[in-house]
Amino acid sequence: MSLPAPDPRPPLPTGFADKLAAIVGPKGVITDPADMLPYTEERRGNYQGATPVVLRPAATEEVAQIVSLCAHENVAIVPQGGNTGLTGASVTNGEILLNLGRLNKIRALDPQNFTMTVEAGCILAEAQRIAAEQDRLFPLSLGAEGSCQIGGNLSTNAGGTAVLRYGNIRELTLGLEVVLADGRIWNGLRGLRKDNTGYDLKHLFIGAEGSLGIITAAVLKLFPLPHERHTAFVALANVEAALELLALARQASADAVTACEYMPRIGIDFALRHNDTTRDPLAQPHDHYLLLELSASRPDSGMAEALETTLSQAFDKGLIADAAIANSDSQRQHLWLLREALVHGQASEGVSIKNDVAVPLSKIPQFLRRADQAVSLACPGVRPVAFGHLGDGNIHYNLSQPLGADGAAFHDRWRELTSLVSEIAMDLGGTFSAEHGIGLLKREALHHFKAPVEIDMMQRLKQALDPQGIMNPGKLL
Amino acid sequence: MSLPAPDPRPPLPTGFADKLAAIVGPKGVITDPADMLPYTEERRGNYQGATPVVLRPAATEEVAQIVSLCAHENVAIVPQGGNTGLTGASVTNGEILLNLGRLNKIRALDPQNFTMTVEAGCILAEAQRIAAEQDRLFPLSLGAEGSCQIGGNLSTNAGGTAVLRYGNIRELTLGLEVVLADGRIWNGLRGLRKDNTGYDLKHLFIGAEGSLGIITAAVLKLFPLPHERHTAFVALANVEAALELLALARQASADAVTACEYMPRIGIDFALRHNDTTRDPLAQPHDHYLLLELSASRPDSGMAEALETTLSQAFDKGLIADAAIANSDSQRQHLWLLREALVHGQASEGVSIKNDVAVPLSKIPQFLRRADQAVSLACPGVRPVAFGHLGDGNIHYNLSQPLGADGAAFHDRWRELTSLVSEIAMDLGGTFSAEHGIGLLKREALHHFKAPVEIDMMQRLKQALDPQGIMNPGKLL
Repeated sequence: MSLPAPDPRPPLPTGFADKLAAIVGPKGVITDPADMLPYTEERRGNYQGATPVVLRPAATEEVAQIVSLCAHENVAIVPQGGNTGLTGASVTNGEILLNLGRLNKIRALDPQNFTMTVEAGCILAEAQRIAAEQDRLFPLSLGAEGSCQIGGNLSTNAGGTAVLRYGNIRELTLGLEVVLADGRIWNGLRGLRKDNTGYDLKHLFIGAEGSLGIITAAVLKLFPLPHERHTAFVALANVEAALELLALARQASADAVTACEYMPRIGIDFALRHNDTTRDPLAQPHDHYLLLELSASRPDSGMAEALETTLSQAFDKGLIADAAIANSDSQRQHLWLLREALVHGQASEGVSIKNDVAVPLSKIPQFLRRADQAVSLACPGVRPVAFGHLGDGNIHYNLSQPLGADGAAFHDRWRELTSLVSEIAMDLGGTFSAEHGIGLLKREALHHFKAPVEIDMMQRLKQALDPQGIMNPGKLL
Repeated sequence: MSLPAPDPRPPLPTGFADKLAAIVGPKGVITDPADMLPYTEERRGNYQGATPVVLRPAATEEVAQIVSLCAHENVAIVPQGGNTGLTGASVTNGEILLNLGRLNKIRALDPQNFTMTVEAGCILAEAQRIAAEQDRLFPLSLGAEGSCQIGGNLSTNAGGTAVLRYGNIRELTLGLEVVLADGRIWNGLRGLRKDNTGYDLKHLFIGAEGSLGIITAAVLKLFPLPHERHTAFVALANVEAALELLALARQASADAVTACEYMPRIGIDFALRHNDTTRDPLAQPHDHYLLLELSASRPDSGMAEALETTLSQAFDKGLIADAAIANSDSQRQHLWLLREALVHGQASEGVSIKNDVAVPLSKIPQFLRRADQAVSLACPGVRPVAFGHLGDGNIHYNLSQPLGADGAAFHDRWRELTSLVSEIAMDLGGTFSAEHGIGLLKREALHHFKAPVEIDMMQRLKQALDPQGIMNPGKLL
């Protein structure tokens, strides 16, 4: 995918790079193009960014000084976390690239308040680990957790597999520290469950993809650490049954369903075909599967019984055809491996076109039927692999190229086929970007699908908080 | 308390009232001062509002027409729900009063999506009831639930007793419909758990006290309906013990603690003294109590055992001195009656000065010690009654007048004593308004306590979305 060409940024003012270098010191500046690659290359290869300098500040005050200097000289900035985003939101087009990776301290952990205060560059898995050491859970969990950073998670309002029970990172955030577009620091690092003192400013910056300011730290909610997980791999009678099964499980477990992932047969086939360590947990193939997980923060919670009761009720009602319950941690890990191997397996099946849509849960069966029909009509032989976070209404409706087709030609139909799928999701009260955001990739879709009144409000907010337009220009809006 | 006198609003343009009346019809207009009283009188008698006309539109389109007309003629509007607010946010000072009470339909309930779509004027208790009919819980619960309205709950980001498990109404909201300051309607009624398509506009209007637009409807999250509640009244060894007990209970119950209310002995004394149907659940008096409730959405959840285990562990650790577990629904109701009778009892003990503060949970013991010391030094004989939502760090630190003192003279010390308490909360990383908001009452405190950068951001947002300043002028900011 080639980068759209907006107004090219002017070169940096004379001596500007030296002033920036003086702020961050030698450890914080990268100007060698080869050393810049980990920051300028988009991981999926969709975009190749260009920047005069990569800055890696190690303190909020340094970020503030950089932004202040940039604001003074009208120089644009692209903030970046772990560079794992999927929409090109941290790709540079001549702007300064400000990577937050060195701003990575855990500033505080308060087990009694069930909160931790972390800097933007902290790796997600590291935040999870530090919380677990104090017998606390930081529930955000997603594929890139080993390399993505909290600041990036916040700026894209990351979701993942635990949203059903714990919410997106937006719901997990109590306070923020942000460097504003003029270089001032807003210290909103409050660890309070209740604070009704004016407009809630943190929600403006969460999910704003760095276009209103740079998040430098956050106070995050923690939870009791689960000490028991009960996981089942269920063959569904049909997609409708998934909704009824989920409602039964939420009821029976006192709302302790912590994962509800949908997988179609073709996804299991991909996993089995391309990962030698996977095997089918059930004797017969089925069209639709659900990976259902219940968690309890104490042993002997009765959660195992809740899962068994749910499945047996579901069987009696004809909702499920078969099921396997993990009896050990390794069995549980194998069920999750299937979910991961599905994703990697698709990469081995040729070119794929990805959709990250959501609809109200009650509309999922209708969405899948309509989307399958539409894409098959438009592109005979296309192989839809619709999987993902069914409990959130969030389906990764990915399309694998027809067998034997030309991959490049299929990829050229990206705009047409994603539009088809998005239109159906929107028609059902859904969204064209559930958890991946807008970045560069979905800007066109944003302007196509959003009502003018909503675009207008967003532009007013952008104008109010970044009147010079120097924060990640050309992204999101 | 006398209403501060900002610029008096000019009289309505000639013929303007007739145009407004034509929009809403005869059922929607009140001009007789006596009939206006339920809308213009603030319930606690702190403020007496004045308005040329009370409008009661019955449809979003009517609200939009009213606002559009007002924007055109630069006429200011105060939106109002059930008029149960505690800070004067819906008191008029010559503006048009727009009451949402007739806009009260339940537009949709989707049990599979665990959502309901309700109009702003819907009474909270009615929303709870309709959800329960479908075996779903709408968890927001607070004292005024029989008369407060969803629109008011949203505009003040209502909290209450279930925040610990379910969050404030902000966390319970998936979508909004809002009439903007220029009369355009923003339809953001999406029922999605994940939707990352630009700035999250709903969070701007939630908690904005009607100063950015008028919320006319919302999509709210529902949960499995609890079918079991286990409630205990616990005498604590000290305040510190409450935090350890709460952490134990969250752990043991798989985070199913749905209420954690703190009460001091003086509060129980007030309840017992002024409500004949109450009695002390424990044999001996103690200094500190906790009302702890665990909920489960199915019978035989093991939750009763979780509560017993928690209490017996807490007893062994010396955290609690005594405890009573409710063995029937009437016993449970009596424990909650004590919590309510405490509030009403305080009204019978003379004049009181109310504080609605929050601090991080770990700071509660320190807050109580410092506040007790400070107010007793400033006002010897003052009787602090610190009660409330300990699980959220939210303490209603209310002060009863010294016995035999002059009530009016005590009331005159409102500003001094609330400032003292607020300063201590702020010093501990807390807030001077946890769940009641700003309105008129705490505007001065807002400007005193908030950093200039935060006030500046709020003013920019106000300017961006209500440039004419006609939406609830003089409130919040």
